[in-house]
Amino acid sequence: MLLFSIKSILIMIADIYIELKEGVADPEGESTLKALRLLGYKRVKKVSSIKVFRIEIDAKSKEEAEKELREMCERLLANPVIHKYRISWVDGNV
Amino acid sequence: MLLFSIKSILIMIADIYIELKEGVADPEGESTLKALRLLGYKRVKKVSSIKVFRIEIDAKSKEEAEKELREMCERLLANPVIHKYRISWVDGNV
Repeated sequence: MLLFSIKSILIMIADIYIELKEGVADPEGESTLKALRLLGYKRVKKVSSIKVFRIEIDAKSKEEAEKELREMCERLLANPVIHKYRISWVDGNV
Repeated sequence: MLLFSIKSILIMIADIYIELKEGVADPEGESTLKALRLLGYKRVKKVSSIKVFRIEIDAKSKEEAEKELREMCERLLANPVIHKYRISWVDGNV
């Protein structure tokens, strides 16, 4: 007797890029730039810092997973006042 | 009278990905995973944190810039004991 049906579940991997919005100060990038120039790399013009979370998630479809990931960004991972985010699927895992 | 020749200088943009090596503890990823699960996202299986530096650099060629970027990673940006790094050129700026 079949008690339950097996649903196809996919494990998907997404990279969530959390970047500062235009015009927001980036002290980490600025101090990295200063340190690089002190080390002699005078040709470096700008450094920006970006945070990436690589997330493995179970879902029935890519759309469903993307919806959930956007919700996570808005509730926890990004601060909408200063950050913008984008979701990028890692190849070979979708 | 021409006192100097103008050399072609390109401004290139590269993303430097600094990731933890396999087996190295990732407390930031782990606490993000815990927080997401507490918020109800039970389908998230793993979270890893990655640091990205977006660097604008002047150089005569891509090869020259890449050599300099590798040196920066080894001297300042990455810790070779726990990190691996990779350089990815940002499209449209090379």
